[in-house]
Amino acid sequence: MSALPRTSPAGVMVIGAEPVIGTGEEIRSVDPRTGEALDPGYRAASVEHIERACALAKQAFTAFRATTAERRAGFLERIADLLDERRDSLVECAHTETALPRPRLTGEVGRTSGQLRLFAAELRAGTWQGARIDPARLNREPLPRADIRQRRIALGPVAVFGASNFPLAFSTAGGDTASALAAGCPVVVKAHQAHLGTAELVARTIAEAAADTGMPEGVFSQLVGGGTEVGARLVRDPRIRAVGFTGSREGGLAIAAMAADRPVPIPVYAEMSSINPVLLLPAALESRGAGLGAAFAGSLTLGAGQFCTNPGLVLAIEGPGLDTFTRAAADAVAADAGATMLTTGIADHYAAAGDALAARDGVDEFARGSRPDSAACGRARLLTVDGARFAADPALQAEVFGATSLLVRCADTAELTAAVETLEGQLTATVHADEADHPLAAKLLPLLEERAGRILFDGWPTGVEVGHAMVHGGPFPATTDPRSTSVGTLAIERFLRPVAYQDVPTALLPAEVRDENPLGVWRRLDGEPSRDALAVDSAD
Amino acid sequence: MSALPRTSPAGVMVIGAEPVIGTGEEIRSVDPRTGEALDPGYRAASVEHIERACALAKQAFTAFRATTAERRAGFLERIADLLDERRDSLVECAHTETALPRPRLTGEVGRTSGQLRLFAAELRAGTWQGARIDPARLNREPLPRADIRQRRIALGPVAVFGASNFPLAFSTAGGDTASALAAGCPVVVKAHQAHLGTAELVARTIAEAAADTGMPEGVFSQLVGGGTEVGARLVRDPRIRAVGFTGSREGGLAIAAMAADRPVPIPVYAEMSSINPVLLLPAALESRGAGLGAAFAGSLTLGAGQFCTNPGLVLAIEGPGLDTFTRAAADAVAADAGATMLTTGIADHYAAAGDALAARDGVDEFARGSRPDSAACGRARLLTVDGARFAADPALQAEVFGATSLLVRCADTAELTAAVETLEGQLTATVHADEADHPLAAKLLPLLEERAGRILFDGWPTGVEVGHAMVHGGPFPATTDPRSTSVGTLAIERFLRPVAYQDVPTALLPAEVRDENPLGVWRRLDGEPSRDALAVDSAD
Repeated sequence: MSALPRTSPAGVMVIGAEPVIGTGEEIRSVDPRTGEALDPGYRAASVEHIERACALAKQAFTAFRATTAERRAGFLERIADLLDERRDSLVECAHTETALPRPRLTGEVGRTSGQLRLFAAELRAGTWQGARIDPARLNREPLPRADIRQRRIALGPVAVFGASNFPLAFSTAGGDTASALAAGCPVVVKAHQAHLGTAELVARTIAEAAADTGMPEGVFSQLVGGGTEVGARLVRDPRIRAVGFTGSREGGLAIAAMAADRPVPIPVYAEMSSINPVLLLPAALESRGAGLGAAFAGSLTLGAGQFCTNPGLVLAIEGPGLDTFTRAAADAVAADAGATMLTTGIADHYAAAGDALAARDGVDEFARGSRPDSAACGRARLLTVDGARFAADPALQAEVFGATSLLVRCADTAELTAAVETLEGQLTATVHADEADHPLAAKLLPLLEERAGRILFDGWPTGVEVGHAMVHGGPFPATTDPRSTSVGTLAIERFLRPVAYQDVPTALLPAEVRDENPLGVWRRLDGEPSRDALAVDSAD
Repeated sequence: MSALPRTSPAGVMVIGAEPVIGTGEEIRSVDPRTGEALDPGYRAASVEHIERACALAKQAFTAFRATTAERRAGFLERIADLLDERRDSLVECAHTETALPRPRLTGEVGRTSGQLRLFAAELRAGTWQGARIDPARLNREPLPRADIRQRRIALGPVAVFGASNFPLAFSTAGGDTASALAAGCPVVVKAHQAHLGTAELVARTIAEAAADTGMPEGVFSQLVGGGTEVGARLVRDPRIRAVGFTGSREGGLAIAAMAADRPVPIPVYAEMSSINPVLLLPAALESRGAGLGAAFAGSLTLGAGQFCTNPGLVLAIEGPGLDTFTRAAADAVAADAGATMLTTGIADHYAAAGDALAARDGVDEFARGSRPDSAACGRARLLTVDGARFAADPALQAEVFGATSLLVRCADTAELTAAVETLEGQLTATVHADEADHPLAAKLLPLLEERAGRILFDGWPTGVEVGHAMVHGGPFPATTDPRSTSVGTLAIERFLRPVAYQDVPTALLPAEVRDENPLGVWRRLDGEPSRDALAVDSAD
């Protein structure tokens, strides 16, 4: 790996410790401003390459999951340090491939390294092990109770499919990779075709960090492939035990179907499709309609609208406040210069999906931004429909990935409530409410809880904080698995499973469930959370 | 409900608060000793009955999940108290339907009520909420951090399919129902055809407890149906949000496939198939081969071998110790009188599956018990094969539900290890090891962890303790979801999902994530576990 230049991509995949040039068809990322194919070209992985990456991952698995939390934390921190060191070259490469602005990409490198460090801290915090001890009760009647202890272990090798819209934070070294590695799962990434160079630079960085910190070879690999064949083989490989995916509903559903159809089905965490409803309640509209309109347009057009949490749906009750909001939003969108989208494919899909939405019965366009001079141009767009029509037409909930939003004008709170009740699962639901709106908000809140992974008040859904309490997930079709999150420390649980140990001799017990608690982890002793050692003879 | 006699079944389903007689084809449970159909008959649920049970469950959902943990605990305890009160009539009814011995069924009532009380205690323990608070940091650079809080809420209505082999503890009021109700999920049970009367008595008890404790109507229903139609409709109903199942691999896979194929896929927790390998290490065999042989036969023939954790596979290394074990096990099995199995269908399948296993190349029978005089008779049986053949023939891992076990004689530790490496996922893996065996056990332990949900030393897998640390689950095909358990308090997590609250006004926040911690639950404050209130102005 070290023979290659660190700052520019060389057209390689990473299989274990080795840079490898594929033998399949050549693919290239494309500059979305010009539509020109970029250097270097990447040849796709062969069946043997996939085979070798999976074999190495399996081979590494038992040793990797047995590394101490401290050692895995060191591995994650080494990746973070190297990414920060290489920030400028990563930003340049990603900027060329995605047209995302440099300051945004600079922030994204920091978010990516910060996320890796957060998982390192989580590993040291000693809660993820889920340790539980029910000590033996030898004198229990009618039967003695055995000594039973529980901890969580890694699921096995994980396949990760990164997202186009976050070439760093949701891609090769993104949240899925960070949480899987933290859990002790080797990772095989399928590089995103839209940012092959960035993916390569990051993959080589991870491989270097693995070598620097003495991780077993195979703990990380990255494969390249055009179309869906490499990914499909990866999902079907018997050694892969879970999948993380961020992308389209179509892609996520295809992967979930493949995973369910395996001889041994595996969990799929696909984050797919969300239109992120924003509810504007009457008093808030009345007191700050203009400000809300401008702020909404800002959230909508940020990054050409290419966020999973982009506000694609606004629900409000007719009235002067809504009129003020509408004018302000329309003015802001009309003044928007547009932006280059991530790929020409995304831009084409954006335009077509927006046209399809605009063509539905009862839908009117009320604002449109400018068209930038770009191969992959995205124009902001505002559409509107009334509440009754919205509740009656499920097609109005189709995600338009980009800066298009649909304003639903409801006649009254009953119509607003009915519209909310029809909503599919969402990553986020936002409420703008003044204090006078709180009684209405309290009625709507349970409906939103049942439909979204995150509920925000008086803010905008774009911008996902990486922390302990964040949920970036939600009911279908936001994800394929609402029991989890793809952002924040809770994500480590996706890649773990519990194991119980009954009357296992002390010398053979994992450290986290030994009496003396040598790792100092949090445990439930007979159900009670504690970091104490298990008192000798506490058992009756 | 109160107009019906409490101690004898009346041939009704339970839909919300009402006893309902079906309108479909009549089905009956059968006395497995005589093969005679039992009274009363049960007519299957119509499409409208299924519709109504699901509609009531959905209608109850929002109110039920919002009940306090204390109130749900009271509901579970009321069910437990009523079951204990009605123990004798439940035991009689179940004894007639299943032929399981009365003392075993008496214990099972206690296990069922104990399980409900354990979940009541878990609700009060205040950890299941998974509360987390990351307080705002308004002065953070470059951007302020929002206030983000997390808790878990119920998934939605759950469909439960009980098991034939535990007419109480894994059936209508069994672990799946207890954990789903604890989580705040309404439950719709499909009654098991093998014990319709027991299922009815228990269902009416739950409905009565729901009324006694003021739970919303629809929190529980139980439907009856022959064949698979009622169950299939239930799994496909859009209002059902998760499924709990205990039964055959075929049944579990069919349900999982249906659930994955829904417009909105849902999680399925199917506990299916496990042969529960028992490893006899050399020193243990040498020092206590005869005792192990007799104890093994006892575990194998207990309850006619009808336990999910029945030891269907024994792995050991050739030698005098193994010869001693083999003789002792063969003698004990030859002396076994046999037993009536749960149903004639199970008995037929048991005989056929045993014959199929015995007919594989290299497999020899070395002991057979007696045939009891019964319509559903089960004869114990011991088969043997060498380690090389076992590793080469996946068909030798087929579950034979009943008292048949396959002894795999390995030439050496390498062959034993190779055999273990070929094992499918299991509920349990057992090791018998003297201290001299510990180095070998330490090598095998990681392989077992990767293949089983519970590892036991020097005991027998039959008998599943209900506690905090138990795992009754494991990799496929033991279950469809290795991330969970169907026994023990961790099971509540199956039916919950996380929700984040960002900058939600205090008055609208759920109690478990309010600053002052009014419920006194365990929370992670900026990642640190605590039961303290959030210090005001702790945020910077």
